Amino acid sequence: MASTLISRQFSLSLQKNLWLNAPACRYASKAAAKAEVEVDYDGPLMKTSVPGPRSEALTKQLGEIQNVGAINFFCNYEESRGNYLVDVDGNRMLDIYTQISSIPIGYNHPALLKLMSNPNNLSTLVNRPALGILPPENFPDNLAESLLSVAPSGMSRVQTMACGSCSNENAYKAMFIWYRNKERGHSNPSEEDISSCMINKTPGCPELSILSFMGGFHGRTMGCLATTHSKAIHKLDVPTFDWPIAPFPRLQYPLEEFTRENAQEEARCLEETEDQIVKWRQKGKPVAGIVIEPIQAEGGDNHASPNFFKGLRKIASKHGCAFHVDEVQTGGGTTGKFWAHEHWGMDDPADIVSFSKKLLTGGYYHKNEFQADKAYRIFNTWMGDPTKNLLLAEVLNVIRRENLLEETTRSGKALINGLYELQAQYPGLLSRARGQGTFCAIDICDDPTRSSILLKARDKGLLLGGCGDRSIRFRPSLVFKDYHIDIFLNIFNDVLAMHK
Amino acid sequence: MASTLISRQFSLSLQKNLWLNAPACRYASKAAAKAEVEVDYDGPLMKTSVPGPRSEALTKQLGEIQNVGAINFFCNYEESRGNYLVDVDGNRMLDIYTQISSIPIGYNHPALLKLMSNPNNLSTLVNRPALGILPPENFPDNLAESLLSVAPSGMSRVQTMACGSCSNENAYKAMFIWYRNKERGHSNPSEEDISSCMINKTPGCPELSILSFMGGFHGRTMGCLATTHSKAIHKLDVPTFDWPIAPFPRLQYPLEEFTRENAQEEARCLEETEDQIVKWRQKGKPVAGIVIEPIQAEGGDNHASPNFFKGLRKIASKHGCAFHVDEVQTGGGTTGKFWAHEHWGMDDPADIVSFSKKLLTGGYYHKNEFQADKAYRIFNTWMGDPTKNLLLAEVLNVIRRENLLEETTRSGKALINGLYELQAQYPGLLSRARGQGTFCAIDICDDPTRSSILLKARDKGLLLGGCGDRSIRFRPSLVFKDYHIDIFLNIFNDVLAMHK
Repeated sequence: MASTLISRQFSLSLQKNLWLNAPACRYASKAAAKAEVEVDYDGPLMKTSVPGPRSEALTKQLGEIQNVGAINFFCNYEESRGNYLVDVDGNRMLDIYTQISSIPIGYNHPALLKLMSNPNNLSTLVNRPALGILPPENFPDNLAESLLSVAPSGMSRVQTMACGSCSNENAYKAMFIWYRNKERGHSNPSEEDISSCMINKTPGCPELSILSFMGGFHGRTMGCLATTHSKAIHKLDVPTFDWPIAPFPRLQYPLEEFTRENAQEEARCLEETEDQIVKWRQKGKPVAGIVIEPIQAEGGDNHASPNFFKGLRKIASKHGCAFHVDEVQTGGGTTGKFWAHEHWGMDDPADIVSFSKKLLTGGYYHKNEFQADKAYRIFNTWMGDPTKNLLLAEVLNVIRRENLLEETTRSGKALINGLYELQAQYPGLLSRARGQGTFCAIDICDDPTRSSILLKARDKGLLLGGCGDRSIRFRPSLVFKDYHIDIFLNIFNDVLAMHK
Repeated sequence: MASTLISRQFSLSLQKNLWLNAPACRYASKAAAKAEVEVDYDGPLMKTSVPGPRSEALTKQLGEIQNVGAINFFCNYEESRGNYLVDVDGNRMLDIYTQISSIPIGYNHPALLKLMSNPNNLSTLVNRPALGILPPENFPDNLAESLLSVAPSGMSRVQTMACGSCSNENAYKAMFIWYRNKERGHSNPSEEDISSCMINKTPGCPELSILSFMGGFHGRTMGCLATTHSKAIHKLDVPTFDWPIAPFPRLQYPLEEFTRENAQEEARCLEETEDQIVKWRQKGKPVAGIVIEPIQAEGGDNHASPNFFKGLRKIASKHGCAFHVDEVQTGGGTTGKFWAHEHWGMDDPADIVSFSKKLLTGGYYHKNEFQADKAYRIFNTWMGDPTKNLLLAEVLNVIRRENLLEETTRSGKALINGLYELQAQYPGLLSRARGQGTFCAIDICDDPTRSSILLKARDKGLLLGGCGDRSIRFRPSLVFKDYHIDIFLNIFNDVLAMHK
């Protein structure tokens, strides 16, 4: 089988490049033994249905401590490699979901193992600093080498945070602070501002809003949650803000057959967005910022054209609203460019770009004017984690060294073509195949069929995730190659045949 | 000097116990050399004023990337040891602030260095899982050995989160979900609940509130921030919720001279709290939960008696509100007990206890009924970080092995007695010395004098932090001993003499 052969060659070549150059370590008798294991397996290998008996037992054990309703199975991360996640029952699955799209270059990448074995990094691992007051010596250089080396166009400033929600929460705060400073003509806050904010009153705590889009997902803390509209279960029973929600375009596929309809749909959404901005200003809750994903991920992999985003950026500027592009799921290379917004081809794509997941650290980039005017306005104890910055710097090295953006573009083409073929083959079952790079999705006829497909695929060694009402999203890591796609398509085809 | 001698003996004995047993590592020529360095220095050593020239240069460099208004100086974490933080200019300071109270057992503790050098942990360091869906095999055991081994009374469930703000945000959500489930009689949400929450409307997003206390600090994301009332700069310009704020007792010191007045003050605050609960219910924004710190830390180290907290707990029960004790800063042992609420002597102290900082991972414990009824209600991509759980388990081992709670109680007595003596010596300058364990504070006559004292102390090798309007808070790690207190008192006395 060709894919097996290619996989092995790839593995051996990586071993030679990376492992054999790694300094030996007397600690590492186990790690050294592992160095002889391939960096990627040559296919799935299933021993039980999933979850297997060991996973079931552990789920029961964890159930005494936490809600386990979302647990898929328990993993053996030591034995996982590259694109393959191994579970505690010895099942080895091709992972096209990658921990909700958060593993950038596969499991146990040799470059990361080597990095974390380096004793020079020990101190970083055990002394977590309060980055906002007492950063380590290498912090500015590390930011320059990691996050700033992939900064979006027009942005040379970045604030790290611990996770995606904190990133968006703080980005919203930065937009509110920017907006009120504009309103005050950059003069000092009044005594009334100062005293009223302490008791949650206007004008200190102003009635401002963030405009978001139906179907969007921006996190689950209370500020973020007010802008999240993908599934009711995220929002139910949590108090929120009266903020405007605009429609996100619902494109019809194949795109080339619905050019006119899709353009009309996007125009409709832009018009409604502008209406909402005007309406909320009239209500006394002006829109300080607009937040949007380049591709609505959790909400069902909803795409829009570069024209739509260009139009939206113009509307934001026209009405004095900040423009925040949330790249928590789209960022990091899977669309074939490092940031999905690069596909829009704009010099000035955004005021703020937030990230997390595959970037390993959370945070947001921003234009100069969105830096808080005073200290302690955007602040918390940790403000990120230098350990994650270290890992990110090495991930970026690997992406460059192994040309992973180009590879992802190439793999993405093979993946979407494969999905088009399957869609033609199973017209009653599949529709709306879509994607950018390997960031792809396809719709299933209904939700129960989708669930059945996901479970049957898993039992055959294919780990996939859902999104939206009835989509399957594909979120492989950046080391997902043509031959992985062959394996995927073969198994997926078998599973679809069972649902024909 | 006695303290120097004791310090050296302590260091040598620790080296013998821990370092010399550590397996050698060929990687670790640098680390091995460091093993010969003592685990704690014998006193501060200052080479420049702080920040020194190297810190100034790095601050300038970082200023191109971020707001640096809060940066104190840059650190050399590799050279820092135990209670001593070393900066990039070679200054060595006795650290009684510990990264905003987040370093549990000092810098570069040998046990943690050994742990992070263990190749068996490498996979944990490089493969961050989505804990809510695909946990590692050792996750339930690790929770049992770490967090559950120190669970507050009545709680056997714990949810990890990445930071303190996320912990409180999710704890608030758990209280809202619990409250609405009670209101619905635990039946399923209505169609109207489901559809209205998607567009930020009642009844799906209900008008519920969290009652907090003036002077409290619970974080800076938007839900948390609505309950934070310590400094205006945290809250200014950020939209918020109309939630009730009750007064926190302002005790008069010395406590034994103001028994009657303080009891009256606490009774007044309890009465006002109950009034607010009634008032907000009448306003149609019922109080789902009460959140409080056992000691208001950021707000100025404000204490209240066990009677106050017992009264508050009763009020919460009476009105059907959840009771959330925020131990983000107080938890982890510095008060001499692992949780500050243990000093209240209650079997059923709380419904929810949140933590972060010295626990190294964020999260919250909760009673069974506060577990969300369905999956994905309390959820995010990472839900904590197993690397931090690993570190915490070892920190807890060290706390037990070295009897650090007892040690902290002992050091705390020496510290507060020293502060009492200084207060008697400088009556115009110092007042209201107070504390529990080493979690101590003292008030300075005014804010400018406080700033001057903090800066002069730092230049003499003593790193302290402020809190409230004019307090200095003492937040040493758990390895802060009698002889460190001697060093502190000597230098602090010198600095105070300059301000007499």
